[in-house]
Amino acid sequence: MRQSQLFTKTLREPPKDEEAANARLLVQAGFIDKLMAGVYSFLPLGLRVLKKIEHIIRDEMNKAGGEELVMPALHPLENYLKTKRDKIDVLFHLGSVTGKQLVLGQSHEEVIVPLVKKHVSSYKDLPLAVYQIQTKFRNELRAKSGIFRGVEFLMKDLYSFHRDEKDFEKYYEKMKKVYFFVFRRAGISPDTYLTYASGGTFSRYSHEFQTLTSAGEDTIHLCEKCRIAVNEEIINETKKCPSCGAAKLRQERAIEVGNIFSLKTRFSDAFGLTYKNEHGINMPIVMGCYGIGLTRLMGAIVEKHHDECGIIWPDEVAPFRVHLIALESKVKGKRSKVHKAVERLYEELLAKGVEVLYDDRDYKSPGEKFADTDLIGIPWRAVISEKTLEKNGIEIKKRDSTKSEVVTFAHFLKGIAHRV
Amino acid sequence: MRQSQLFTKTLREPPKDEEAANARLLVQAGFIDKLMAGVYSFLPLGLRVLKKIEHIIRDEMNKAGGEELVMPALHPLENYLKTKRDKIDVLFHLGSVTGKQLVLGQSHEEVIVPLVKKHVSSYKDLPLAVYQIQTKFRNELRAKSGIFRGVEFLMKDLYSFHRDEKDFEKYYEKMKKVYFFVFRRAGISPDTYLTYASGGTFSRYSHEFQTLTSAGEDTIHLCEKCRIAVNEEIINETKKCPSCGAAKLRQERAIEVGNIFSLKTRFSDAFGLTYKNEHGINMPIVMGCYGIGLTRLMGAIVEKHHDECGIIWPDEVAPFRVHLIALESKVKGKRSKVHKAVERLYEELLAKGVEVLYDDRDYKSPGEKFADTDLIGIPWRAVISEKTLEKNGIEIKKRDSTKSEVVTFAHFLKGIAHRV
Repeated sequence: MRQSQLFTKTLREPPKDEEAANARLLVQAGFIDKLMAGVYSFLPLGLRVLKKIEHIIRDEMNKAGGEELVMPALHPLENYLKTKRDKIDVLFHLGSVTGKQLVLGQSHEEVIVPLVKKHVSSYKDLPLAVYQIQTKFRNELRAKSGIFRGVEFLMKDLYSFHRDEKDFEKYYEKMKKVYFFVFRRAGISPDTYLTYASGGTFSRYSHEFQTLTSAGEDTIHLCEKCRIAVNEEIINETKKCPSCGAAKLRQERAIEVGNIFSLKTRFSDAFGLTYKNEHGINMPIVMGCYGIGLTRLMGAIVEKHHDECGIIWPDEVAPFRVHLIALESKVKGKRSKVHKAVERLYEELLAKGVEVLYDDRDYKSPGEKFADTDLIGIPWRAVISEKTLEKNGIEIKKRDSTKSEVVTFAHFLKGIAHRV
Repeated sequence: MRQSQLFTKTLREPPKDEEAANARLLVQAGFIDKLMAGVYSFLPLGLRVLKKIEHIIRDEMNKAGGEELVMPALHPLENYLKTKRDKIDVLFHLGSVTGKQLVLGQSHEEVIVPLVKKHVSSYKDLPLAVYQIQTKFRNELRAKSGIFRGVEFLMKDLYSFHRDEKDFEKYYEKMKKVYFFVFRRAGISPDTYLTYASGGTFSRYSHEFQTLTSAGEDTIHLCEKCRIAVNEEIINETKKCPSCGAAKLRQERAIEVGNIFSLKTRFSDAFGLTYKNEHGINMPIVMGCYGIGLTRLMGAIVEKHHDECGIIWPDEVAPFRVHLIALESKVKGKRSKVHKAVERLYEELLAKGVEVLYDDRDYKSPGEKFADTDLIGIPWRAVISEKTLEKNGIEIKKRDSTKSEVVTFAHFLKGIAHRV
């Protein structure tokens, strides 16, 4: 994409109304725009990142046997009366002109269970895993930390359905691994930890996935040996690692980037979701649920990967792979050698399917272009100037490195197309 | 995809609470599920169709120079006070726990204009076209006609920004053509008509795109000569074709599948959106907006393409390209020749990138399988049985044809991969 075509501009200064680094950088670089506290637009650059994260999550959920669907945001309140969740304090309530009482979904158990009930009736239909990537709403008193704790946010929620606890546990263990695949591809392993949290009324523990960042909302207690953590609630109960029993735990700031729960038969019971077993006997269906906030994950990536000059996107979630820049001395009314070389390279990169942002803005100084490059944080910077052309080449630099080198066009094209 | 893996099942009977053919068929075939009036879930098959429609629209909007972003559903009411649209009767109102008055977006002028104002300031930034594919809400008293008139629905809305009326008109004319590209690819041309509608307070006319269907909500008046139409409001004013002046217009039932509007400077003025021209003088920005309801379009496609047995999906929006069926006489404990042949063909189709739904359910009779195939409406049906294997082939039939023929596997594979 030609940067001159991008309608968003980087801001000279970070916004004054944002405290969190993720929001300051994402707003300043033109990835997001704040409409009000906890409610953001995703601009072309930000939407590209969000789609990359969506792709990773969809891919891993499909591989884990998930079937994708999409459920509505508007729910009838009556479904929440059945599950006794109508008083949850983060629910947005609204009335319809037809007199129906509605809420905005912050979770979808009240929709997915009656829906699955229409299609699942036999042990042959189980196990089943369905998921969606969909916009959710929380009536938050203190929306804060940029896109960490949103009032409106994009989330992946998967629900699994099983004939018994044993089958559920097998899937639950599998999903723990799948979550780490997601976090690795999103560039936030290795310091993301499976974290024991309270299981509420259903089971002893649920599990969060916490990633270390000084901007984190939570404190976790790490067991170096097991590479797991416990959250504040659990540490107050047990004072030790629930896995190995070690008492020496290291305290860290972290942010939750995913969570998985055992739901037992709580929601199945509320809606009468059962299956017929091999003997024709009706049995309750055992459920689990598995969430990842996509916008929150995007914020966590930025918190973990930035420096004083801007964002440093991990490869697989970067909006583009290459930021191409021409430094040309202006020859009035005449296209320079540099201009011709950079235009040709841009076309060659597109032809090879390399995602490239080409800074073709001739009214920007080299210093402004470099500052924007660092702020936006695309993994590879590639610069063509008269100096590099003398060497018949291009200067390349990784965003997270201070070293640059001049390589030939052929070498660059070959390497970048093979994802060096 | 193996049909045994699809959690949704077709229903024996159409649902009793749906009047419109689109909803009856889509619910019965397992594409959608009704949560309440005007609010539907999109199940795996339905989501596939929606993504195909989304792909067509995104592709055409990108080609027309649109930049994609995504804006929130929650809007601050204060923005609507500025445009005097706070009293629109289809707006859902809700309060936040922070005391803020909110509405759910049924359109996004009140969000896009202040957003664009932060990034656009010069004539060099114009023209600009931005769009989103996003969920909208209308507090409808009579949500009806299945997914035609939704309370919650998916929509593409594009907004264009121009330095003057002339530049706007050029883009507006271009978008008329782009809309027909979309409708052609979605399989609803040639009987979709540019229809003159009231321009409201801004201009003499706005334009709707109406497609003929007996289930339509609207009456339009067609000029055969110009291949345009006028809606009820306009016919009452002018009594003739606004293009050629002909008075002989044919009355038809139709449904709106898109609309485009001139917004002049109404919203720019409300938020002070201006640009500096070549002489440094502030000028108001001229706007247009361009909508297509994706879920509504999906409903229209079904209304127009079905028969008494089920849906007949046009090629480019079909959930799959081939419905593969094995008819095997059961040999107990032993896999039949038919089974081996169909499994091999399924793998070959996947390897060629052909989207195939493979009915591998061995507990279904041939009659049940054929009924499901007709109901679901995938363009090609491909059947393997002992009879076709005798001819070393496969029986193929187009969903909208009564003729079937047996062709060799090689012929079938070659043809289907080249999109016969």
